[in-house]
Amino acid sequence: MQNLNEDNITRAVIAMHAGAENARLRELMTSLVQHLHSFARDVGLTEAEWFTGIRFLTDIGHITTDKRQEFILLSDTLGLSMLVTALNNRKPQGCTEATVFGPFHVEGSPRIPLGGDVANGAQGEPCFVRGSVVDLQGRPVPGAELQVWQADATGHYDVQYAAAGEGDHEHRARATLNVDALGKFHFKTIRAEAYPIPHDGPVGKMLEALGRHPWRPAHLHFMITAPGFERLITHVFRNGDQYLDSDAVFGVRSSLIADWIEHPPGVTPDGARSAIPFYTLDFRFVLNPLPAASGRAAAAGARTAPV
Amino acid sequence: MQNLNEDNITRAVIAMHAGAENARLRELMTSLVQHLHSFARDVGLTEAEWFTGIRFLTDIGHITTDKRQEFILLSDTLGLSMLVTALNNRKPQGCTEATVFGPFHVEGSPRIPLGGDVANGAQGEPCFVRGSVVDLQGRPVPGAELQVWQADATGHYDVQYAAAGEGDHEHRARATLNVDALGKFHFKTIRAEAYPIPHDGPVGKMLEALGRHPWRPAHLHFMITAPGFERLITHVFRNGDQYLDSDAVFGVRSSLIADWIEHPPGVTPDGARSAIPFYTLDFRFVLNPLPAASGRAAAAGARTAPV
Repeated sequence: MQNLNEDNITRAVIAMHAGAENARLRELMTSLVQHLHSFARDVGLTEAEWFTGIRFLTDIGHITTDKRQEFILLSDTLGLSMLVTALNNRKPQGCTEATVFGPFHVEGSPRIPLGGDVANGAQGEPCFVRGSVVDLQGRPVPGAELQVWQADATGHYDVQYAAAGEGDHEHRARATLNVDALGKFHFKTIRAEAYPIPHDGPVGKMLEALGRHPWRPAHLHFMITAPGFERLITHVFRNGDQYLDSDAVFGVRSSLIADWIEHPPGVTPDGARSAIPFYTLDFRFVLNPLPAASGRAAAAGARTAPV
Repeated sequence: MQNLNEDNITRAVIAMHAGAENARLRELMTSLVQHLHSFARDVGLTEAEWFTGIRFLTDIGHITTDKRQEFILLSDTLGLSMLVTALNNRKPQGCTEATVFGPFHVEGSPRIPLGGDVANGAQGEPCFVRGSVVDLQGRPVPGAELQVWQADATGHYDVQYAAAGEGDHEHRARATLNVDALGKFHFKTIRAEAYPIPHDGPVGKMLEALGRHPWRPAHLHFMITAPGFERLITHVFRNGDQYLDSDAVFGVRSSLIADWIEHPPGVTPDGARSAIPFYTLDFRFVLNPLPAASGRAAAAGARTAPV
């Protein structure tokens, strides 16, 4: 294995992996090396460009903490996250579609009762969300658990304040709750707003150089689990948002767009009175039954939250 | 741009980059996105595998400092560095071949006179190196400057001691010197030894999972610059080394293998006496004339050292 050149080096690298015990790892690395090398060959990558890439990845690594995941942002903005979501969530017609997970999920968000307050002090216009979780036949899934998370009126998640050293590090605008015996849920929160993904780092510089904006249309995140069903990670997007057709992370599905209905000041769904306008949202989630002993579903279920 | 699926998302992402002002950046990102997406599609990347990749890159980012460049190690071990070297150093027959730069170069190494000591206290068996720098017609290049760097007898570069918090952070086993009016040079150093690349981090774990060893055959690094010539970044490899055919970074070229000749204790080339055996090495470097106003050569020349 000497004198490798641009024509034979790819085969030589792949041959070095013949001894890997894990056949799937060997398969992944074979394809990765082929595509990585083809990229360099196809564009005639210069040494200066290679080094710019090394620096870019180094900068991403250095800004990434347990509160900020810039590698996920990179994957999101290059469409890789949505592609992987699509590859792993080929659901039957009628199921609620999945979309990107995003970098802002947190394990262990506060558990609230039905009707509880998700916002927990996060600023925004009042919004009352209700809905149901059903199976493909429309029957309630009473065992379902929902995790919901969202940005506040200024477009920030609680973890972004924590990362910046601001705020009191309490969970805000995120919660976990269970549906009732009829598969129904309701909670109080704030209206979802469009926001830019964090763009003060390397990924933001990349978007700027590419002439792209960093905005995502307003949405609520949901992760829904229930025994016997595939975990659903999705958003509900706000109808009318100006970024529905140019989401910076390519996540919009028309089936996930819903109306946030505006109501004048008055009695709210929880029986209280609002002195300002408030919003209501109603959404039905349809879960995909888990095929028995499916490798793909098991792998999807095993995915760990990134932060 | 809604409802993107595994078939149309790649086109949608590329279309988002149509507004990039820099045409070369657009070209690079188009190819990168195509290959990145093809990789995910070809292997049917699962969400768990995607997240393993995110964690792997995060770990690489976090171990990388100004003393340790794990992203370059990754590029080296996947053969990307050698491929980029090959793509950018298509030299005429007769020129000394280039090989990988590696992560251990340091700007500003100590300037020594001809005959000076490169080791500067680094441990190893004495070795006397001499040679010349010439053009394709064999004429001396008296304006040439050499940077030389190498590992010590234990297989470590000075920066690795500094990264580990050991040593006194002085330059060891690296120096900068100029050839004489006849294009000749000589210096004293220690014998180059085979060594494993740093494998206590994520790249080491990857190599282990792939059933690969981390060793590089013994070599001296050279970077040679001279007005009117392409910068040459290369190694001289020690003949007989057991890793010449399985270099962990794919850098060996047979034209760069030379004999380290062993001598019994006695008078050394500098007129002193050695009580132990010592080695001599002789190597001739042939530089490639710089084509006037070549974009590729200019780009190669603009490459900045990584640490």
